Amino acid sequence: MSFIADLFASVFDRSYRKAISDEAEGHSTIDLCLKLLSSHGEVSGSTLARLVLDRYGAMDNTEKLQFFKFMTQGLEIDAQRVIDTLKTYSQSPSKKSYRAFASACEPRRQELMRRLNQVSGGTGQLVAMRMDLLSLLRDHPLLEPLDVDFQHLFASWFNRGFLVLRPINWSSPAEILEKIIAYEAVHAIDSWDDLRLRVQPADRQCFGFFHPAMQDEPLIFVEVALTKGTPNSVQSLLADGRTAINAEDADTAVFYSISNCQEGLAGISFGNSLIKQVAADLARDLPGLKTFVTLSPIPGLNKWRVATKGAIREDAPKNAIAAHYLLEAKRPDGSPLDPVARFHLGNGAMVHAVHTGADVSANGMKQSNGTMVNYLYDLSQISKNHEQFVSEKTVVASADVRALSASIVSEA
Amino acid sequence: MSFIADLFASVFDRSYRKAISDEAEGHSTIDLCLKLLSSHGEVSGSTLARLVLDRYGAMDNTEKLQFFKFMTQGLEIDAQRVIDTLKTYSQSPSKKSYRAFASACEPRRQELMRRLNQVSGGTGQLVAMRMDLLSLLRDHPLLEPLDVDFQHLFASWFNRGFLVLRPINWSSPAEILEKIIAYEAVHAIDSWDDLRLRVQPADRQCFGFFHPAMQDEPLIFVEVALTKGTPNSVQSLLADGRTAINAEDADTAVFYSISNCQEGLAGISFGNSLIKQVAADLARDLPGLKTFVTLSPIPGLNKWRVATKGAIREDAPKNAIAAHYLLEAKRPDGSPLDPVARFHLGNGAMVHAVHTGADVSANGMKQSNGTMVNYLYDLSQISKNHEQFVSEKTVVASADVRALSASIVSEA
Amino acid sequence: MSFIADLFASVFDRSYRKAISDEAEGHSTIDLCLKLLSSHGEVSGSTLARLVLDRYGAMDNTEKLQFFKFMTQGLEIDAQRVIDTLKTYSQSPSKKSYRAFASACEPRRQELMRRLNQVSGGTGQLVAMRMDLLSLLRDHPLLEPLDVDFQHLFASWFNRGFLVLRPINWSSPAEILEKIIAYEAVHAIDSWDDLRLRVQPADRQCFGFFHPAMQDEPLIFVEVALTKGTPNSVQSLLADGRTAINAEDADTAVFYSISNCQEGLAGISFGNSLIKQVAADLARDLPGLKTFVTLSPIPGLNKWRVATKGAIREDAPKNAIAAHYLLEAKRPDGSPLDPVARFHLGNGAMVHAVHTGADVSANGMKQSNGTMVNYLYDLSQISKNHEQFVSEKTVVASADVRALSASIVSEA
Amino acid sequence: MSFIADLFASVFDRSYRKAISDEAEGHSTIDLCLKLLSSHGEVSGSTLARLVLDRYGAMDNTEKLQFFKFMTQGLEIDAQRVIDTLKTYSQSPSKKSYRAFASACEPRRQELMRRLNQVSGGTGQLVAMRMDLLSLLRDHPLLEPLDVDFQHLFASWFNRGFLVLRPINWSSPAEILEKIIAYEAVHAIDSWDDLRLRVQPADRQCFGFFHPAMQDEPLIFVEVALTKGTPNSVQSLLADGRTAINAEDADTAVFYSISNCQEGLAGISFGNSLIKQVAADLARDLPGLKTFVTLSPIPGLNKWRVATKGAIREDAPKNAIAAHYLLEAKRPDGSPLDPVARFHLGNGAMVHAVHTGADVSANGMKQSNGTMVNYLYDLSQISKNHEQFVSEKTVVASADVRALSASIVSEA
Repeated sequence: MSFIADLFASVFDRSYRKAISDEAEGHSTIDLCLKLLSSHGEVSGSTLARLVLDRYGAMDNTEKLQFFKFMTQGLEIDAQRVIDTLKTYSQSPSKKSYRAFASACEPRRQELMRRLNQVSGGTGQLVAMRMDLLSLLRDHPLLEPLDVDFQHLFASWFNRGFLVLRPINWSSPAEILEKIIAYEAVHAIDSWDDLRLRVQPADRQCFGFFHPAMQDEPLIFVEVALTKGTPNSVQSLLADGRTAINAEDADTAVFYSISNCQEGLAGISFGNSLIKQVAADLARDLPGLKTFVTLSPIPGLNKWRVATKGAIREDAPKNAIAAHYLLEAKRPDGSPLDPVARFHLGNGAMVHAVHTGADVSANGMKQSNGTMVNYLYDLSQISKNHEQFVSEKTVVASADVRALSASIVSEA
Repeated sequence: MSFIADLFASVFDRSYRKAISDEAEGHSTIDLCLKLLSSHGEVSGSTLARLVLDRYGAMDNTEKLQFFKFMTQGLEIDAQRVIDTLKTYSQSPSKKSYRAFASACEPRRQELMRRLNQVSGGTGQLVAMRMDLLSLLRDHPLLEPLDVDFQHLFASWFNRGFLVLRPINWSSPAEILEKIIAYEAVHAIDSWDDLRLRVQPADRQCFGFFHPAMQDEPLIFVEVALTKGTPNSVQSLLADGRTAINAEDADTAVFYSISNCQEGLAGISFGNSLIKQVAADLARDLPGLKTFVTLSPIPGLNKWRVATKGAIREDAPKNAIAAHYLLEAKRPDGSPLDPVARFHLGNGAMVHAVHTGADVSANGMKQSNGTMVNYLYDLSQISKNHEQFVSEKTVVASADVRALSASIVSEA
Repeated sequence: MSFIADLFASVFDRSYRKAISDEAEGHSTIDLCLKLLSSHGEVSGSTLARLVLDRYGAMDNTEKLQFFKFMTQGLEIDAQRVIDTLKTYSQSPSKKSYRAFASACEPRRQELMRRLNQVSGGTGQLVAMRMDLLSLLRDHPLLEPLDVDFQHLFASWFNRGFLVLRPINWSSPAEILEKIIAYEAVHAIDSWDDLRLRVQPADRQCFGFFHPAMQDEPLIFVEVALTKGTPNSVQSLLADGRTAINAEDADTAVFYSISNCQEGLAGISFGNSLIKQVAADLARDLPGLKTFVTLSPIPGLNKWRVATKGAIREDAPKNAIAAHYLLEAKRPDGSPLDPVARFHLGNGAMVHAVHTGADVSANGMKQSNGTMVNYLYDLSQISKNHEQFVSEKTVVASADVRALSASIVSEA
Repeated sequence: MSFIADLFASVFDRSYRKAISDEAEGHSTIDLCLKLLSSHGEVSGSTLARLVLDRYGAMDNTEKLQFFKFMTQGLEIDAQRVIDTLKTYSQSPSKKSYRAFASACEPRRQELMRRLNQVSGGTGQLVAMRMDLLSLLRDHPLLEPLDVDFQHLFASWFNRGFLVLRPINWSSPAEILEKIIAYEAVHAIDSWDDLRLRVQPADRQCFGFFHPAMQDEPLIFVEVALTKGTPNSVQSLLADGRTAINAEDADTAVFYSISNCQEGLAGISFGNSLIKQVAADLARDLPGLKTFVTLSPIPGLNKWRVATKGAIREDAPKNAIAAHYLLEAKRPDGSPLDPVARFHLGNGAMVHAVHTGADVSANGMKQSNGTMVNYLYDLSQISKNHEQFVSEKTVVASADVRALSASIVSEA
């Protein structure tokens, strides 16, 4: 195998690229995009796409804003054409009339994205492009439709069926592991030695979803501890000097951290699939595992306490307060106030237990006075739980947690 | 490594599937599709998708027709909603108003396809589903809009950026090689021994595009002979007893056969990219290669002669007739009559030479009295050739071929 | 990845090889061998080794014989030196004196083999060289010591710890599968379609041992059928139209064929390890498997009947005769007469059952009138069985088989 | 794929191991070794080998010493048997008589090592065992013959033909990269960030030899810098803030560090092959490379100056002194005094240039006042250089270096 094959283009390739590049000289990036969208783009597409992406990569924020404005406004739909083609299609539906309508409805920027995507590395560059867009969006709401199109295409491209689940461990490439360090969002990883504690011991696992066109970029990853019994402290779980157990002796898999990696994929949800897939794979390989549970932060607890100051007695037990918050604190639409609760309950999990003193890190104290919660994934109940949660906003919880929560109510 | 890991679902997985399957009992496939499209589908999606695909797999043609009718008509756009949301969007463009419009324009069958795609193997099953659709389409034109949506999604999913180019040779898995035997469309492969002659010798190469979600299914493949000089007979090229040369001694790469493999991907074009990518890779690895050329059939020649009976003298030289046909026989829109010519000229190749007695197989005699043609891929000219071909229908040809063609004209 | 990287040597490499090759011009192969054995061989070893192997490859049988004679006699030990160094070592054992002795005892041909082995592909070429040697050996017994050295080195190089067990199935490279067709020694495989029946169905498995330096050459392979119950006919087992069962529904793994692939590795035994490793892997992946059994030919049965004509009544039941043969027919050293029996009993298996009409092929009828036998691998008994077999020549058999055998004895 | 397949033995495997382990209870390790050497070891070998290696792993130094004494003295050759079999073989050479002699000459500890090697991981454990032996050897010279046998077997097992060259870069597994940090012997790597500077930039390469039975343990590795021109300072080469060049723009490959990784493989030489293989591969992939050179320490320079105090004028130029040392300072046998010089000159390289101020690290100042040397690998000259070096101890050097060295001589 030639380990540096990609480093040098062939003479053939160079002469071809040169022909296209020469044509590109003196043309604006917008011209190149229009050329890429023309029939000409069918033959010289990958070179044109490469040129546009290279130019984009060299833009400053002002130029990016201009580029995004072009994509939004310069490649917008034509409302009249939508109406005309819709009329024709309604009157005489056919391949031709429907295609005309579908084409009228879809702004040409979507086709531009698809054509930019044809070069090696293009997918990752488009994801990075959307990250730029998201940061400009706040001050430039006129770009919103463009973001809707990005999200629409990404939802199709990053379809679950295209994702690959891969274990991440001490045998993984350094270039992937350094991203785990960078992206861990729940319990920070300080160093390579710290990372090693998360991925090397026999009772620690980590898994991520990857897209085939972005091989060395995890999209999302989950860290799992294999334990005997349900843990009640993340610091014990991650303690440096602890003794690892054999994986086959564990009865419980604890999902103690789940982190999204790509800002540019905001709004594309992977977490639900990831947890279920990992649970299924672990269960197959480690028949001793009986319980699948999280050890989760309660990020909104303290904020809520401040906001509802006085509503609950100061000396109420911490665990009861947390249980009460998880079960009773709601958003206007009736769903739980806590975002992590919404995620796991939306997945069909249930509130299993709350633990005080479970995360005594600065961050843990700040958000919830150190209290954490286990959400239980009982796969035979997930579908039912989810349906109740969606249709009636029901929060399913264990009897213990319900009783804890009720103890607050009775004091009120 | 567990080599049969996929054979048995875990207990965990089974209990989960069972819960969903029990719910599915007594529901129609259409009900399941609607459930899959509901928010419920977000959690139990993969199991529901699996159920729908399994049921589809067991359907007969009548049931498939019903299923396609449901997708076409039951999941159709609402014209009034398109008009209403377009109005709102035009008046106050925003994320919300654009999303409403985009959602109104896209029939829900597209989302159904995306959700069916989330299971392992789903992509291949959807491609097979479209193959079924194509065969029903002739008698049921009302299904045409459904096919437009399939094609739209597939063009996005099978974007060049997601395809992987892989060499196909005697080290390839048998399950892939048997597909090369099955799909070879130009010069039939009779047996495994015949296949071996195409992929094992040092001066023979074969490459295919694959999609990551359909790992053992080539989408398209091209067979290449490495030669000294441009060949003028496909039978010599494929002769059984011939002596192979060393790859590094070759000066010419001959693309002598290119075959699409997936009927369900009809209308999604890969050939143009494949030839250019293979040419670029070969040029990098074999610096001795100077010429990239096809040895192509002229499938429409004899049909055209019959149709134009008498227009050309019976005793005109065969090669002159072929040259004349390639350069002068046109469709009403001015493009070449010959489909293979349209493909290569559309890619930016030029007509390089014609050879009589070049394919003396029954098929070769039937379609062109044995005459074949070389199309030359001169990468420094491709882009220019293509543009002229698209804009002015210009057929670029070598001086020799032009002279041959002209010799006919002068006789007329 | 450069798919043809190996085809062309670098300029660097070429200039280097050229320097060595120029030196080689006009030198005999024996000279090159001596140079390779000199200190010079440490630097230019791989080029010299390549030259010697290339020259060997071009030799006819007469030249090979000369070459082997040189290796045997020209690179022989020096008896006096053995005696001298032994004396010194016995008197004052040290690193130096022992090394001198060890060096004196080992003929230089072993070092030559090791130095020839340093080039890519060298291992396979040495194995092929020994195959040549074995065929010359019959008429040239003076070469026997050379063969002893080959066998000694190969036993070390093909140590179980260096072998890799790989599944062989329809996803395996064609270049490996064609060797399965070629090497199958028990139940011939006629064609690729026939091969497919052996390796593609869900209830068929095939595994081989490979050596890392001979990646595409299986050393030995075993074919396994997964069944419900113990089969009594190889024709039913291999029937074309039969319905495959799911692997996880099987309770029995049947080793119905085991074939060595490399004549040049004669005398190096792999079969014992292979069966145990495959049994262990299958048991791990398919917990439903309870019984591990062979369906084996009885190759010596008919020959023995002819040799012992009249000793057993002609109308005795076939299965009783077979049982009697397996349990009572012995070689002079007391071990079983049947070679397949010796192999499996030597591995610690037991005679489990005999079946008439179990192999009605021409070959099966010829060797045993169609009777076959199951040897049972009960892993908790293997070690004990083996020890009894080795120390006391005890043939362990089921009560049924013992009774069958005894029925013959009582008639005598 | 089951990612933890190895973690749990199958029921089958367990019952088998249990049977053997039960037998082992109450037997000494020496008994187990003898059992492993018996015919019984052919069937239960891997379990016995596993038991012996496990027990060895738990031994303290005193027990290890006992174990090694057993291997040395308890499994020693029988001198009389050597003499007897030699006599028989000399009188009537045959397969049988030669095998008897060969068997008598080889102490049974070699067969024990081969049988211990049959379990997964055995090779690495034997290499570690020899490391233990080497540290005990100093005080227990009676173990020397055992070490000779280890070295003999390892030379055969780690034959160049079995080694695999693999690039080591930022895509390599962390478990391999951490070993690069640990084993780098020339220019220490302080941290993962430091490591990244050595393996990630486009103009840095690292390659190692691996053995298939020790997949995650490099045996030796070399670090390469791709540069324009020959560098004269290792600190500039490794500078943190430097700008990387494109690999294809380099004209020179600099081997600036080569480190052995396995103490237990002391005396088995890989470096010569490694440098030549890497040079050949780089030349193939980067045709722009014209010069292959080291940037090497001169570890013996200052020690020699102290030892020869006064022989050279204190104010002689540093580079002249270094040149003089490299060309003229000799061991009693006439070979160069400097060990690094011996290595590269023995490989056929030549002394190309010396540079003062080239390694200003504490270590560099201590060993050579910061002076370093380039050895040039001119592949068309290597074989000739080597032969002269071996036969006549000739040190080939550039005219410049010879002149520098001579300038000292003329002053003497």
